[in-house]
Amino acid sequence: MPLSPEQQAEIDALRARPRQTLRAVAEGLEPHLYKPVAVLDHGFVRVIDYMGDDAAICQAARVSYGKGTKSVQNDEGLIRYLMRHWHSTPFEMCEIKLHVKLPVFVARQWIRHRTANVNEYSARYSILDREFYIPAREHLAAQSTVNNQGRGEVLGDEEAARVLEILKADSARAYDHYEQMISQDGQQGLARELARMNLPTNIYTQWYWKVDLHNLFHFLRLRADAHAQYEIRVYAEAIAALVADWVPLAYKAFEDYRMGGANLSAMALDCLRRMLRGEEVTQENSGMSKGEWREFEAILRG
Amino acid sequence: MPLSPEQQAEIDALRARPRQTLRAVAEGLEPHLYKPVAVLDHGFVRVIDYMGDDAAICQAARVSYGKGTKSVQNDEGLIRYLMRHWHSTPFEMCEIKLHVKLPVFVARQWIRHRTANVNEYSARYSILDREFYIPAREHLAAQSTVNNQGRGEVLGDEEAARVLEILKADSARAYDHYEQMISQDGQQGLARELARMNLPTNIYTQWYWKVDLHNLFHFLRLRADAHAQYEIRVYAEAIAALVADWVPLAYKAFEDYRMGGANLSAMALDCLRRMLRGEEVTQENSGMSKGEWREFEAILRG
Amino acid sequence: MPLSPEQQAEIDALRARPRQTLRAVAEGLEPHLYKPVAVLDHGFVRVIDYMGDDAAICQAARVSYGKGTKSVQNDEGLIRYLMRHWHSTPFEMCEIKLHVKLPVFVARQWIRHRTANVNEYSARYSILDREFYIPAREHLAAQSTVNNQGRGEVLGDEEAARVLEILKADSARAYDHYEQMISQDGQQGLARELARMNLPTNIYTQWYWKVDLHNLFHFLRLRADAHAQYEIRVYAEAIAALVADWVPLAYKAFEDYRMGGANLSAMALDCLRRMLRGEEVTQENSGMSKGEWREFEAILRG
Amino acid sequence: MPLSPEQQAEIDALRARPRQTLRAVAEGLEPHLYKPVAVLDHGFVRVIDYMGDDAAICQAARVSYGKGTKSVQNDEGLIRYLMRHWHSTPFEMCEIKLHVKLPVFVARQWIRHRTANVNEYSARYSILDREFYIPAREHLAAQSTVNNQGRGEVLGDEEAARVLEILKADSARAYDHYEQMISQDGQQGLARELARMNLPTNIYTQWYWKVDLHNLFHFLRLRADAHAQYEIRVYAEAIAALVADWVPLAYKAFEDYRMGGANLSAMALDCLRRMLRGEEVTQENSGMSKGEWREFEAILRG
Repeated sequence: MPLSPEQQAEIDALRARPRQTLRAVAEGLEPHLYKPVAVLDHGFVRVIDYMGDDAAICQAARVSYGKGTKSVQNDEGLIRYLMRHWHSTPFEMCEIKLHVKLPVFVARQWIRHRTANVNEYSARYSILDREFYIPAREHLAAQSTVNNQGRGEVLGDEEAARVLEILKADSARAYDHYEQMISQDGQQGLARELARMNLPTNIYTQWYWKVDLHNLFHFLRLRADAHAQYEIRVYAEAIAALVADWVPLAYKAFEDYRMGGANLSAMALDCLRRMLRGEEVTQENSGMSKGEWREFEAILRG
Repeated sequence: MPLSPEQQAEIDALRARPRQTLRAVAEGLEPHLYKPVAVLDHGFVRVIDYMGDDAAICQAARVSYGKGTKSVQNDEGLIRYLMRHWHSTPFEMCEIKLHVKLPVFVARQWIRHRTANVNEYSARYSILDREFYIPAREHLAAQSTVNNQGRGEVLGDEEAARVLEILKADSARAYDHYEQMISQDGQQGLARELARMNLPTNIYTQWYWKVDLHNLFHFLRLRADAHAQYEIRVYAEAIAALVADWVPLAYKAFEDYRMGGANLSAMALDCLRRMLRGEEVTQENSGMSKGEWREFEAILRG
Repeated sequence: MPLSPEQQAEIDALRARPRQTLRAVAEGLEPHLYKPVAVLDHGFVRVIDYMGDDAAICQAARVSYGKGTKSVQNDEGLIRYLMRHWHSTPFEMCEIKLHVKLPVFVARQWIRHRTANVNEYSARYSILDREFYIPAREHLAAQSTVNNQGRGEVLGDEEAARVLEILKADSARAYDHYEQMISQDGQQGLARELARMNLPTNIYTQWYWKVDLHNLFHFLRLRADAHAQYEIRVYAEAIAALVADWVPLAYKAFEDYRMGGANLSAMALDCLRRMLRGEEVTQENSGMSKGEWREFEAILRG
Repeated sequence: MPLSPEQQAEIDALRARPRQTLRAVAEGLEPHLYKPVAVLDHGFVRVIDYMGDDAAICQAARVSYGKGTKSVQNDEGLIRYLMRHWHSTPFEMCEIKLHVKLPVFVARQWIRHRTANVNEYSARYSILDREFYIPAREHLAAQSTVNNQGRGEVLGDEEAARVLEILKADSARAYDHYEQMISQDGQQGLARELARMNLPTNIYTQWYWKVDLHNLFHFLRLRADAHAQYEIRVYAEAIAALVADWVPLAYKAFEDYRMGGANLSAMALDCLRRMLRGEEVTQENSGMSKGEWREFEAILRG
């Protein structure tokens, strides 16, 4: 995603103008402001604004607990306690606003997270740019044979070449036709709101996306997960790295309790207790289905 | 949207099996249950389930007002009062669940209404059908010359023919390539979650969409409006017709106070008062911008 | 909560009038419709309406998975899979509407669950009834000495008697004064919206509360939990019993994966793996704080 | 609401420490940060943090419109256009976090606005302060004789004195008893989560409340309205004054199109058109009910 000279100049101008504020400032995030982090071939994520920091989470929690929190000595302990016990409202007191450029098929997954504010580029008003996501060679994978919803092995050379050829040619042709249909050169020019329907979903769109930290963590847990589609996972990972610099204590707690943790069922806990007592537990005597047992073993293996 | 014999048989089976319930029953909606209302060339809307009726709105309002509502004699008057005064919570007590088949570009607009529950067909799991929206000849319109976001005149014959040719050919080719890429016939077969990106947004998807009546009215106000894109407006109109049979009193109030009503600004009200006193009011002495004045005149003309 | 003859007659009338519908009917819930389940001394929960059943959850999931779900044989397996993998949207397709009578201090906790529809009795419009929650003798407990937010031992006889005396006398006096202030007998009568402020929060209010099954499960997980305040927990338990009759398969999965399950952190999982390898793990070498270790041990004990 | 020396010192310390940021800064709001605005007898509102300004609204709108907004020359025109046409998402890009101290009965109304983030002081954890709202003499009004939900004339001297006496005495006694019940002086001490139920709803609570500008405008429209209860209206008015300094262009548009505007029904518009044509329109030939006609006349009178 090479920036145009105009875009780079605008970012430089915004970053050249530090201003004074009495609000909480997250020192770790200020260096990232406005700068795009490249994702996929033409996409990016950049922080446009934020509200709050680790201290703001504690401040909100302390309002709830009043004089009752004297015993929790420090911010880190309090934040970990909140995360562990699913006390989500203090995390909602932080907010971040991102500018994201992403393929339409990724946007379609992303938008399912409803508790966020969105302003998307409108292809009714404006003409979309000629930018399409074409996967890198190493991400062209076959349908998984064990998972209906996922990828298996990387495609062989010949098949990959054929796929890339199709994706590139179809994108280019679709955009050529889009331009031809809306052109007012010697014709009326089809309405943009209609012409856009010819474009495939690997075309890029962009939006402003604003979300509170609690809901962002929920997004990251689902989308930075190994089962998420690669093309949205890379966005989640880029955002996670920004969050780690924004609210380092909260992010660390999120990693320990959410990303690295696991939810065990009543049956799984029962099996664990039996195993710790030295009992031989197998799928057959576990009370779990084969699928559950497989997932349980994977958790124990780590 | 011709139903397959299997689909028709399933609908017939569901409709053949009336069951007893002690819940509120909306007599006007029962005849519509499960039956698809055709929209666009391959789309439909059909009611799968609902909760509540006009009486349920009043029942909820009367809980709020307690003994204080004795004076409002009847349900119709109460519902109109609630609608007029934006008392929205009683309308939230009704809920409807729809099964909708719609082009992806319409789904992208629709999903922006966040306060609803959605289960969409997943093209990560499953293979999309070869069904594309191709506009009817009379809906192929040029970009509006007065409105960045809209359509103007219908295209001339030659241009329309060219556009239709493009849309049809590109859809067909994109789907052929989609099939070729995922085929496991002599090759590994590209993962479905990747192959789908080659498909244009006039392909059809489908979802279950569940929403409460208050939020549905908000959706209808925006999407059944003359400024909405035709392709989503026809869905809104189909749903509106169902709602009119479901909660006739609430729907009538919605028509009078929302669809047929208008919001006037402080300046517009001031101008009106001057006009009623016989004063000559023009854009120049109205305090409104040209755009506002044009909209104001349109309201007065009706 | 003895019903007045009028209330009982109204419930009998509603239950005497079975009607035909083509919608999904949850046979297990129909016998409960309209009948109040007594909670606390004057409160109740009763089901007024519902939408969907176990099959509706599967139906929605199958729309998402399309032809990709052929492999999951039955509804129970599918529902357990959805619950285990936090696929929450199919559960949102079921909805329930409850009529609840509850003390104001319980209502204040309850309302923090934002994703629900509420119509509450308005003390601006109407006069509240003289009904106050007075705890049963055995629920009068001392402040916990280990937990800032909880109860410890049951109060001794003398102290309990004193507390009960205070609660009863203050409630009665507050209500007497409320009546005196609003009375228009020989005086203007204070506005109801002002007079209500004199009433303590153990007075009963009532509301219609409508929520989808996913959000209801979230409510139940937090409020039917042992750490929830007793006075809201009994409502959650009453609702849980109704849900078990409404959607038995989903409720069973909820019990196994949520109520009876536990969330383990990355550190806890690491300790577990070490323990299963035969290592001696103590709080000191666990990487956990004392509080976390205590919670971890409690989970292992069961 | 006299601040304690500690509170004043904390505010002074926060305000003494301006920091640098690259984010958007609302110059008009910075002078208000942290400073409490007194409301009622012991309440306050103060701004703790904010995100965005008028320019942020335009920036988000311009992402949506892309190159299609060239024609709208300036920020003010664009903001007014957005407000007039109910394009709400750009306003959601601004966020504000308030610290509010307010009587419980006001908090109960306020919390019905669900789209906001809240951390409230917990009376399960901590002991409430002895602070009660006692209305000023001139706000003690009789129940309205024309409106079930409102106040009429101010109470006469003798009745007002009697009411004040009741409110003061009952508050004091309830708090004395609260303290006696939780005291661990020679007794076990009732759990705080139980003792709180004895307190009337004119006791003060406090919370952090964070909301986006669109939802805040909705709150202000309902709560700064003449029909809102005085005790919440004064909070709304205090917040409105802060918003006017934060986003002056958006606030002005809000005043013109929302606060000062009116929604007219289809019948009302029809009557207006007839009146402007010189026709004599009365309630009898208007198609409106008496209540609607009265409201319509009030709008025309201004």
